[in-house]
Amino acid sequence: MELKEARVKYKKLQEKLAAFDHATSLINFDGVTTAPKGTASNRSQTLSVLSEEEYLLATGKETAELLEFLDSRRDELTEKEKRSVYLALKDIREMQKIPMDEYIEYQKLMVEADEVWHRAKETSDFELFRPVLERIVKFTLRFAGLCAPEKDPYDYCIDRYAEGLTTETCDRFFDALKSRIVPLLKRISERPQISDACICGDFDKKAQEDFAYELMKTIGLDLSHCGLAETEHPFTTSLGSHRDVRITTNYHRENVSYSMYSVIHEGGHALYDSGSDDDLAYTNLDGGAAMNIHESQSRLYENILGRSRGFITYIFPVMQKYFPSQMAGYTAEDVYRAVNMVTPSLIRTEADEVTYCLHVMIRYDLEKRLMHGELEVKDLPSEWNRLYKEYLGINVPSDREGVLQDSHWSGGLIGYFPSYALGSAYGAQFLRKMNEETDVEKCMYSGNFKPINEWNRNHIWKYGRMLKPEELLENALGEPFDPTVYTDYLEKKYTEIYNL
Amino acid sequence: MELKEARVKYKKLQEKLAAFDHATSLINFDGVTTAPKGTASNRSQTLSVLSEEEYLLATGKETAELLEFLDSRRDELTEKEKRSVYLALKDIREMQKIPMDEYIEYQKLMVEADEVWHRAKETSDFELFRPVLERIVKFTLRFAGLCAPEKDPYDYCIDRYAEGLTTETCDRFFDALKSRIVPLLKRISERPQISDACICGDFDKKAQEDFAYELMKTIGLDLSHCGLAETEHPFTTSLGSHRDVRITTNYHRENVSYSMYSVIHEGGHALYDSGSDDDLAYTNLDGGAAMNIHESQSRLYENILGRSRGFITYIFPVMQKYFPSQMAGYTAEDVYRAVNMVTPSLIRTEADEVTYCLHVMIRYDLEKRLMHGELEVKDLPSEWNRLYKEYLGINVPSDREGVLQDSHWSGGLIGYFPSYALGSAYGAQFLRKMNEETDVEKCMYSGNFKPINEWNRNHIWKYGRMLKPEELLENALGEPFDPTVYTDYLEKKYTEIYNL
Repeated sequence: MELKEARVKYKKLQEKLAAFDHATSLINFDGVTTAPKGTASNRSQTLSVLSEEEYLLATGKETAELLEFLDSRRDELTEKEKRSVYLALKDIREMQKIPMDEYIEYQKLMVEADEVWHRAKETSDFELFRPVLERIVKFTLRFAGLCAPEKDPYDYCIDRYAEGLTTETCDRFFDALKSRIVPLLKRISERPQISDACICGDFDKKAQEDFAYELMKTIGLDLSHCGLAETEHPFTTSLGSHRDVRITTNYHRENVSYSMYSVIHEGGHALYDSGSDDDLAYTNLDGGAAMNIHESQSRLYENILGRSRGFITYIFPVMQKYFPSQMAGYTAEDVYRAVNMVTPSLIRTEADEVTYCLHVMIRYDLEKRLMHGELEVKDLPSEWNRLYKEYLGINVPSDREGVLQDSHWSGGLIGYFPSYALGSAYGAQFLRKMNEETDVEKCMYSGNFKPINEWNRNHIWKYGRMLKPEELLENALGEPFDPTVYTDYLEKKYTEIYNL
Repeated sequence: MELKEARVKYKKLQEKLAAFDHATSLINFDGVTTAPKGTASNRSQTLSVLSEEEYLLATGKETAELLEFLDSRRDELTEKEKRSVYLALKDIREMQKIPMDEYIEYQKLMVEADEVWHRAKETSDFELFRPVLERIVKFTLRFAGLCAPEKDPYDYCIDRYAEGLTTETCDRFFDALKSRIVPLLKRISERPQISDACICGDFDKKAQEDFAYELMKTIGLDLSHCGLAETEHPFTTSLGSHRDVRITTNYHRENVSYSMYSVIHEGGHALYDSGSDDDLAYTNLDGGAAMNIHESQSRLYENILGRSRGFITYIFPVMQKYFPSQMAGYTAEDVYRAVNMVTPSLIRTEADEVTYCLHVMIRYDLEKRLMHGELEVKDLPSEWNRLYKEYLGINVPSDREGVLQDSHWSGGLIGYFPSYALGSAYGAQFLRKMNEETDVEKCMYSGNFKPINEWNRNHIWKYGRMLKPEELLENALGEPFDPTVYTDYLEKKYTEIYNL
């Protein structure tokens, strides 16, 4: 094979995989947005056929040979090709270690698990979900042993979502966080509670939807390449390339902030996904570098920017326009305080900035012990409840609002959670860096996201998956990651709000 | 190869093709429903990759060998297998006659043509569209010559949409129709015009949407397997199998009947598509037998049933519920007369029952002459306008409302139009047959579609593509097709309405 021919073949392969990805992502998106209720089995029939095709394409003998050939000539490849081939080879070498029959069994388990988890959550019945989760944990340990026998199995899990991240780094990070957040939370809890009356009430769905589009435009999303839909759980997905991104939200009539911050959070993901350099489209370098970096963007826009006094001052008149009667008699300051109300609660996705990381720590602790064989699945609910009491001081009334609340484990995503907390902390340090060039606070007062988006584009988005997450982080920060920047940020903000 | 093994392979092949079809149909559906505006090129990138894969799969050497093998053992196949292999072989043998490079060029032309046609229609600029249409006509003639050199090229075109239908049959049919419809129309035009004031006004979109769902339920669609969306042009599509069907409509605020009859028309297609026997799912026998049979269903529900006095009597109180102020002061009889107002008009899709077939005849006449080399593309607009004057007595003010109105030619669908008219006529004869078992009129007065759907299911829907259209027709009718049943129906109905 000539190098030139191999390059053409590789380009074609990447385009095929992107096309399959477009198809399967859209089928899933359709399933949770517009598909009629009774069509799930029809969709899963198609998805199982397409996944098998995609799997054979990505891991087949011809592809393996092509990748090994390109790797053998890597000195002649461009930087982009090198990174692309490296990532593809990493995947294929890992897949080769997993026997085909086990892989298929696992895929089937995933379909079953999703369905069982939904039922278990609905009926708050952990026992229903337990056997399935036991199998998922067993599979995860088995795959860790096959793919990375030299690694701590939980390190293998974390690395799947945040290349290079380790338990050791997470431990240090969470210890640092805990030592500052727990006392901060205690001090807050001793102060009078803030009122969130101004964001509660009855908010018309259509008005919320119009407001959502306005928010998307405000944070700088290009609506001709980013769509909005309604789903039970908000999420972001790319279809085929960064040129077609969709975010979803859920409108809570009784609280306007739920959809507002879902839109800004998913909008942060969408900005990142859309921001890849154009020549990365239809390659495996398109999109985000890793989930910790992804969450750094979503949580930066949602919290650090979206819940800042400047942004609320800017957006309040817009809220008055869409929700005139609900906002009557309130000020921007009321909204600012309401959306920053700190209160230990049961549900992670609805948690405030201060308690959020505690929710993640609980999951991290449980996952780690599961992967280290120090905790059995059957003991998860009691351990979950014990930790919620210990970290957040609250009693968990049911597994539905407890151990069954997140879809991650049923989706096999063990090791994902740390990314949420790490991302939050990266965001604070990105902000400090941005402030060297731009007065971010001033931008927020005028709803001007341009300089912020420019900074993110030039330091993060445009690279897609070109850089390893650690490299990207170091490049963007120009200094090592320091979690105290985040805890300082939290302490300063909430000391002022709660008059500590 | 063993027969058993070949059967397994064939089943798998059919499932793969159904999965590809699901993916490409959904990508197209997404494109006209929810996709952001600027994402067309991203979609066409994915579609071109998937179409090529699908093409290779459907026509590759391995598939051809498999089909030839199965065909050589056809005596041992079930009836279903025989028909399925026959249809697949018919396609593949045709494809084999078209050189790969020409096929790809044609596919590219289709993408271009769609885009150019949209622009041309918007600016009412036929000259813009002309070169593209000339290439489409040339390709069509070329493919006809390659695939069916023994046939009249227009017969080849018609057969693509209505297996077995010929120019000869169409000629006879249209002559019969014309000799009855033209005088009928003349007599109607001499009578005082009906008022359609009751269906005109300002109809809230949300109310129209709710009404659309109620109509879907009324005609017997299962909403857990049939969805509704909004597009510029109403259509029906199946995703993967008959278990997931989507219809679309367009809400005209100023006239409630537009969406109402789009929903019932597309609903007729959807009932047919959904009605295939379950064991036809994921095979090439799933769905409708041919476009003429398909249109027989859509136009039966839309016109013969949906515009009957019985149905209007039943649905009028429902309309009063959704549109109380607009319906105030009107009666069911007013609505019945309004939705049956006959008036020569420019746009086929908005034409009434009497003039509809004249619109089709004009297109049929033009297509036939194009395919016979008796008409050049450049002369289409003037011929179009001349025929509208001759058949309908009206002047065409612009190509946008004239020769550029339909998307069929830009989509390469030369030969499709006759199916609309034939289908309308089949419907009338189906009705006569149904009436032998059920009092259809009585059913309509109570909005009871069950016996009608049962009849259609047992005589038409369940077979999918198992039977040739002619067989299906003969089976269902138990007598030869007779277009006078349709013209008698029209004459009787409109003599009464217009008091002729």
